[in-house]
Amino acid sequence: MDVKSALQKFKDLQEKLSAFNHAEALIFYDGVTTAPKGTTANRGQTLSILSRESYILSTGKDTVELLEFLDANSGELSHKEKRAVEIALKGIRDMQKIPMEEYVAYQQLLVEADDVWHTAKENSDFALFCPYLKKIFDTEKKFAGYCAPDKHPYNYCLDKYESGLTMQKCDEFFTALKAELVPLIKQISQRPQLSNKCLKGDFSEDMQRRFSIELMKAMGIDLDHCALSTTEHPFTTSLGSHHDVRITTNFNREDFSSSMFSVIHEGGHALYDMGSSDDLAYTFLDGGVSMGIHESQSRFYENLLGRSKNFIDFIFPKICESFPEQMKGYTAEDVYKAVNLVTPSLIRTEADEVTYCMHVMVRYELEKRVMSGELEVEDLPSEWNRLYKEYLGVDVPDDKHGVLQDSHWSGGGIGYFPSYALGSAYGAQFLLKMKESVDVEQCLKTGDFAPINEWNKENIWKHGCLYKPNELLDRVLGEPFTPKAYTDYLKNKYKKIYNL
Amino acid sequence: MDVKSALQKFKDLQEKLSAFNHAEALIFYDGVTTAPKGTTANRGQTLSILSRESYILSTGKDTVELLEFLDANSGELSHKEKRAVEIALKGIRDMQKIPMEEYVAYQQLLVEADDVWHTAKENSDFALFCPYLKKIFDTEKKFAGYCAPDKHPYNYCLDKYESGLTMQKCDEFFTALKAELVPLIKQISQRPQLSNKCLKGDFSEDMQRRFSIELMKAMGIDLDHCALSTTEHPFTTSLGSHHDVRITTNFNREDFSSSMFSVIHEGGHALYDMGSSDDLAYTFLDGGVSMGIHESQSRFYENLLGRSKNFIDFIFPKICESFPEQMKGYTAEDVYKAVNLVTPSLIRTEADEVTYCMHVMVRYELEKRVMSGELEVEDLPSEWNRLYKEYLGVDVPDDKHGVLQDSHWSGGGIGYFPSYALGSAYGAQFLLKMKESVDVEQCLKTGDFAPINEWNKENIWKHGCLYKPNELLDRVLGEPFTPKAYTDYLKNKYKKIYNL
Repeated sequence: MDVKSALQKFKDLQEKLSAFNHAEALIFYDGVTTAPKGTTANRGQTLSILSRESYILSTGKDTVELLEFLDANSGELSHKEKRAVEIALKGIRDMQKIPMEEYVAYQQLLVEADDVWHTAKENSDFALFCPYLKKIFDTEKKFAGYCAPDKHPYNYCLDKYESGLTMQKCDEFFTALKAELVPLIKQISQRPQLSNKCLKGDFSEDMQRRFSIELMKAMGIDLDHCALSTTEHPFTTSLGSHHDVRITTNFNREDFSSSMFSVIHEGGHALYDMGSSDDLAYTFLDGGVSMGIHESQSRFYENLLGRSKNFIDFIFPKICESFPEQMKGYTAEDVYKAVNLVTPSLIRTEADEVTYCMHVMVRYELEKRVMSGELEVEDLPSEWNRLYKEYLGVDVPDDKHGVLQDSHWSGGGIGYFPSYALGSAYGAQFLLKMKESVDVEQCLKTGDFAPINEWNKENIWKHGCLYKPNELLDRVLGEPFTPKAYTDYLKNKYKKIYNL
Repeated sequence: MDVKSALQKFKDLQEKLSAFNHAEALIFYDGVTTAPKGTTANRGQTLSILSRESYILSTGKDTVELLEFLDANSGELSHKEKRAVEIALKGIRDMQKIPMEEYVAYQQLLVEADDVWHTAKENSDFALFCPYLKKIFDTEKKFAGYCAPDKHPYNYCLDKYESGLTMQKCDEFFTALKAELVPLIKQISQRPQLSNKCLKGDFSEDMQRRFSIELMKAMGIDLDHCALSTTEHPFTTSLGSHHDVRITTNFNREDFSSSMFSVIHEGGHALYDMGSSDDLAYTFLDGGVSMGIHESQSRFYENLLGRSKNFIDFIFPKICESFPEQMKGYTAEDVYKAVNLVTPSLIRTEADEVTYCMHVMVRYELEKRVMSGELEVEDLPSEWNRLYKEYLGVDVPDDKHGVLQDSHWSGGGIGYFPSYALGSAYGAQFLLKMKESVDVEQCLKTGDFAPINEWNKENIWKHGCLYKPNELLDRVLGEPFTPKAYTDYLKNKYKKIYNL
């Protein structure tokens, strides 16, 4: 084998795995958008077969030999090639440690669990979901033991979504956030509350769907390569490559802002994925590098831009066009205040910017304790409710509005949640950096997202997975990451809004 | 290798190929229902990789050896196992004769051609589609040469959709139809025309979608395993097995009957597929056996049942509930007359029962001549228009309403069209047989499809591909198939309607 022919084989392998990913992601996406409800087992059957095929393809003898040959000859590879080999080897070395039957069984479990979670959430029935969730946590623990026996199992989980992240780093980060946010939340709670009446009314799905498309256009999302669907829980997925990205939202008939910010959030994910350099398509380097960086983009668009005064001023006429009856008598200022109303609440995805990270901390605490063996899955609902009372001061009325609200656990996403808080903080520091060369406020005022998107593309998106999250942060920021930019941003913004 | 372990391997193979079929069918379905429009090349890339994988799986040395071993030991196999081996071997022997690169390139061509056809139809631009259609006909000819060098290439095509069908049989069949239909059409044309005003108006997509679901329920379609989507051209597809079936329709805002009969038609296909015995799932025997038998079911529900007096009487109140404003002042009798109005027209899918087969004959004639080398693809539009004038007496205003109207050619479906006419005729003879034991008129009057569906399931659906089309016909009919039941049905029905 020479390096040139090995690289050609490596290219073929990546293309093949991209095709399998396309099929598997589409089957999942179809399952939550379009598939009739009795078809879960059918999908599970297909997914278990396809995931077995891609497992064999990824970990087979030929593949391992190929990658080890390329690794041994890394001196002859470009940075791009070297990085792709590195990612492939890391994935394979983990995968090889997991027995194939267990890997495949887990994929099938996740399909069933997602289905059961939907029903359980609908009926607020944790007992129905509990055995599945138990199996998911158990499997994650077992896989952690296979792949990283020297690590704490939760560190293994955290590292999957944000390479290098540990409980220690999370604890430091959340402690720093808490120190600034808890007093701010308290101060705000003592001020007269803002009104969010202008967001409420009766908003048909059709009207909201049309408005969503307007939002996507305003953000500069290329609709030829990004479609919008509706699901129980909004998400973003790429099919095969960054040339086909799907975002989803959930329309709340009584409050248009719920879907509005879901669309902007998922739109941020989509922009990041779609912004990969074209030569990364069908390689392991395509798309976002980590969930932390991913959330830095989604929450950047959702909050730093989407809930800003200038953007609301810009988008207000479009809101009025979309909901003419409902918006009668309201001003852009009313909407700005309403979408920035701070109040402890039950649902993470609808939480305001200031209390948002408290929701994440609840999940982080619970995951950490279950993964450490200190908490039983059966006890998650009561502990969830207790922590919501402690961190946010709210009473959880039922599991639908509590422990069953998020889709992450049913999808196996243990360790994902901290990315949301971390990403929010990355984003605030990115914004300071961006403002050194882009007149962001002027862009928002005129609804011209091009300079903002170009900066993000140049600095973040186009690189795909070329750099590790930490390397990318260093390149973009040129200084160490700290949560200070984020807490400063929150304090400045909300002190003005609440006249503190 | 012993027979038992060979059968287990054969089971695994069928399951694997079902999974690939699931993925490939879903990618196609997603492409025409949900995918953003710039994603065709991305889908083509994935499909070419997956179809290459399934080609290798189907025709690889191990598979061929396995099937030949089972074939050699067929004395030890059940009828079911023998038939599955037979189908697999037929498929493989054909496939093996086609070079893999050509097979894969053709799959990719069809993805592109479908995309180009959509644009070409929209803009009535045959020149845009022509080079693709030329390649498709050329490939079909080439493949016919590989697979059946002793046959006329068009007989190879016909046989793909209805095993055993030839040009000779088609010619006889169409001659018999023509002999009865041409005089009937002429007689009708001399009578005062019926009104279809009650079908016309402004029918929102939402209203029509809700009505479609009512129709599916009325037909006894299990909505837990069958979903409805919208596409340019209605079709039915199964994903992985008969447990997940999708039908599509196209809503005509100005005439609710267009989608109504598409839904009933595709619903008939869906019932057939979904009715396969559960032990056939994930085998080569799952789903309908041929397109002729398939169309016998779809056109049975669409016309023999759907356009009958008793069904219209039953469904009329639901039509009024769905479109209360638009139906004011109209009676069930008005709707019955309107949906049975006979008039030569341009669009096959909207043609009445009497003129329908003339549309099929145009396509049959043209395909036959192109496949015989007597007609160039470039000349299809002018010949199409000439034959429409000759057979139906209508002037085709543009290619959108002419040669570009159907999706079949862009999907490689050369030889498919005769199935529609043949299936219509099978259906009429099935109905006579069904009436020996089921009070069909009473069922329609009360909207109780259960006895009808049970008869079809018992006699046709549950067998999947267990019997060849001809064997199945013999089993169901107990007498030779002739078009007489069909022409008698048409003459009796329309003589009454038009007072002939």
